[in-house]
Amino acid sequence: MTTPLETVLAAAREFLGDRLTTNLSLREQHSHGEDPIPPVLPDAVAFVLTTEEVSRLIMLCHTHSIPVVPFGAGTSLEGHVTPVRGGISIDLSRMTGIVELNVEDMDCRIEAGVTRQQLNAHLRDMGLFFPVDPGSVCTIGGMVATRASGTNAVRYGTIRDNVLGLTVVLPDGRVIKTGGRVRKSSTGYDLTRLMIGSEGTLGIVTEIQLRLHGIPEAISSAICQFESLQGAVETVIGILHAGIPVARMELLDEVQIAACVAYSKLEGLEEAPTLFFEFHGTEAGVAEQATLAETLAVDHGAHGFRWAVTAEERGKLWQARHDAYWAALALKPGFRSLTTDAIVPISKLAEAVVGVKEDCVASGFTCTIVGHVGDGNFHTLILYPPGDAAAMEQAMELDRKIVGRALSLEGSCSGEHGIGIGKREFLEQEAGIEALAVMRSIKVALDPKGIMNPGKLFLN
Amino acid sequence: MTTPLETVLAAAREFLGDRLTTNLSLREQHSHGEDPIPPVLPDAVAFVLTTEEVSRLIMLCHTHSIPVVPFGAGTSLEGHVTPVRGGISIDLSRMTGIVELNVEDMDCRIEAGVTRQQLNAHLRDMGLFFPVDPGSVCTIGGMVATRASGTNAVRYGTIRDNVLGLTVVLPDGRVIKTGGRVRKSSTGYDLTRLMIGSEGTLGIVTEIQLRLHGIPEAISSAICQFESLQGAVETVIGILHAGIPVARMELLDEVQIAACVAYSKLEGLEEAPTLFFEFHGTEAGVAEQATLAETLAVDHGAHGFRWAVTAEERGKLWQARHDAYWAALALKPGFRSLTTDAIVPISKLAEAVVGVKEDCVASGFTCTIVGHVGDGNFHTLILYPPGDAAAMEQAMELDRKIVGRALSLEGSCSGEHGIGIGKREFLEQEAGIEALAVMRSIKVALDPKGIMNPGKLFLN
Repeated sequence: MTTPLETVLAAAREFLGDRLTTNLSLREQHSHGEDPIPPVLPDAVAFVLTTEEVSRLIMLCHTHSIPVVPFGAGTSLEGHVTPVRGGISIDLSRMTGIVELNVEDMDCRIEAGVTRQQLNAHLRDMGLFFPVDPGSVCTIGGMVATRASGTNAVRYGTIRDNVLGLTVVLPDGRVIKTGGRVRKSSTGYDLTRLMIGSEGTLGIVTEIQLRLHGIPEAISSAICQFESLQGAVETVIGILHAGIPVARMELLDEVQIAACVAYSKLEGLEEAPTLFFEFHGTEAGVAEQATLAETLAVDHGAHGFRWAVTAEERGKLWQARHDAYWAALALKPGFRSLTTDAIVPISKLAEAVVGVKEDCVASGFTCTIVGHVGDGNFHTLILYPPGDAAAMEQAMELDRKIVGRALSLEGSCSGEHGIGIGKREFLEQEAGIEALAVMRSIKVALDPKGIMNPGKLFLN
Repeated sequence: MTTPLETVLAAAREFLGDRLTTNLSLREQHSHGEDPIPPVLPDAVAFVLTTEEVSRLIMLCHTHSIPVVPFGAGTSLEGHVTPVRGGISIDLSRMTGIVELNVEDMDCRIEAGVTRQQLNAHLRDMGLFFPVDPGSVCTIGGMVATRASGTNAVRYGTIRDNVLGLTVVLPDGRVIKTGGRVRKSSTGYDLTRLMIGSEGTLGIVTEIQLRLHGIPEAISSAICQFESLQGAVETVIGILHAGIPVARMELLDEVQIAACVAYSKLEGLEEAPTLFFEFHGTEAGVAEQATLAETLAVDHGAHGFRWAVTAEERGKLWQARHDAYWAALALKPGFRSLTTDAIVPISKLAEAVVGVKEDCVASGFTCTIVGHVGDGNFHTLILYPPGDAAAMEQAMELDRKIVGRALSLEGSCSGEHGIGIGKREFLEQEAGIEALAVMRSIKVALDPKGIMNPGKLFLN
């Protein structure tokens, strides 16, 4: 007797051919993200090329109740792509088409497997760019699924603010288009925003209409150091109050900066809390923003202000920031990182970070802190030895403490990485039982068979 | 035998006292908005003061299947507040508390009945302001319900972008808090955005956490006129591409500008397409933005550039813009306006507006056009004689033509007014049957008895 899975695979092979595979090494590649969640093999991997293929495949899985898990670049930090109940890993990374580009309106439509880097390479000659920058090489479909952001959010917003519309394959295979090309609308429920951050549990996003921005005439970056964390945070608050349209504002603690100095060969930096800035605008505008920011920073105890104006100098500075993750890992060779994603109101950031540092010291783990300080979002990289279950449990205990601290300061457990598997216990705590019940009733209404990325967001 | 309605009214009177009323003139006040939809009397009006009162009242209505309709300032242009199936009009206009204000983090929590004007009066001394400005005196709860925006959206975003979290009473009386104080988050379905624009059909918003902005150091306004609409629109596109952070950019057609000249005693203006600008920033920044914008405008055939820098001059200019509605009505004393809300990609704006003007001329109606041109959103004010059913039908026919034209140009039927009763037929056309089915399944999941603002959004 054929099993439901065998039926689905046989039928899917008819239109996917050898792009549907049960090859073990490909299944292993699709068994995990970049997170510490234990890998689980999917039963098969489907490399899809079109919305129609996704629709046909999901229709089959719906009929036979086979789980589906969307997969992009596999950079999730919370277990989003781990097929905990088996089924088919739908890999969208080959859907890399730029479907349309409207230079005058500064928007484009892309397939979900396009990466930020691919899109920006395509746009450069048109004087446009897509600003949402989580640092890693991830697909924009994955960014939509997790409601990602990154270093530019303080000025350009998160992915939520830069998506105009979506093509979504629903849990029964039907295809809808949400939103469109217009910059705002007031036409019924905001299905675009409902899908953004839904982590593949309500549908699979196959195309995305994005808002683009003009490449600024001038860009200038800077770095400065503070005696105290408080001084750095007060500088940030002062800059936001003054309405200085800073493009990026990043905090690295003294442990992280020491790691970066060693890893990225940055010179002349002390082991002290450090802010990275970037300003976008006209030549004159950038110069004015920079002067104002420097004045505010010096008022709050900053020293060692250094400017990087040429593309090469800026590149070196931001490469060091983007490499912070690898620099931290290099502190403890062979270790891995459990990465937290807490966010608090900016006025509470100094208190949150100081408290977290105390927790880290008490825990005995080597930890670094990097933060999107203009948003109040900071990551603690807890370095733990892989394969040591007790150490893993202690690292998770520290994670819980950090989240608890953030929630007690009116914060949230996730600024940009999502819930996935790793933060399900926190979601209930943070959203409250009734709000979680509303989420569940939406889930049940749209995916009554529970085939869409099961085991994510909800504890059961 | 007591009817379900009588049961509800008797029970609600116990905690609302004489704030629950069946007084005819109060019911008449709550039978309509500012729209041409025929009024329908509610069975009663409840002037609520707290979230708990709303919760208790809705719990009663849920038990006995009595419709509820939220009411704020009654300025809806699409029939949102008309109780088409009777029931209780829940008036939130007395919920005007500023629950908390966090100056450092630039956020606040308000009750849903607070108006933009009240909030900004409260904030002025702190150097902060709330930017979303639909022009009229409306409650912020109503703005949330309809996903409103207005003249500042090109720089500060719509209400969608400026709400951090909500308190919502669900259709069975349960109360949830969505979002919070943090600037971004990635924690489950975006219930905040789902509620924004849901027009009271999924719950009643009683409190709103808002993002605020610093009052800019300098503000400068300008007006200039164009030989052609195309020149005005190309100027707008040029400004957006250059990344000039213009705060407002408004278009008035030659009929509307003539009406404003007569109504607001503006001098020295021709009957020609006119752009209004406003720039926010530092003294130097505003001067630079203004110079760049003027250069671009002159390149596209602008003339008669006039600057208003003092608060008094600016006030006069923007009062004229805000009075555009009354100025248009004054063209045909005794007439009313059917106001459209189409939005198109900005590159299609000239084509859309030129086409709409031809339709208007052919229709024989006096029409004016005002547009939030930085967003591609424009309103056609179709002046019709009230009480003339044939004229009303012709005006609605013209409305349909305008929407059809917008949709054919990849636009939308509503940029900011919402669907309500008036645009239900367009929603299906625009969203598509499958996306509308998703909206309906969410509606049924959250409000299975259909008591929340029935007859809105969906045709049946």
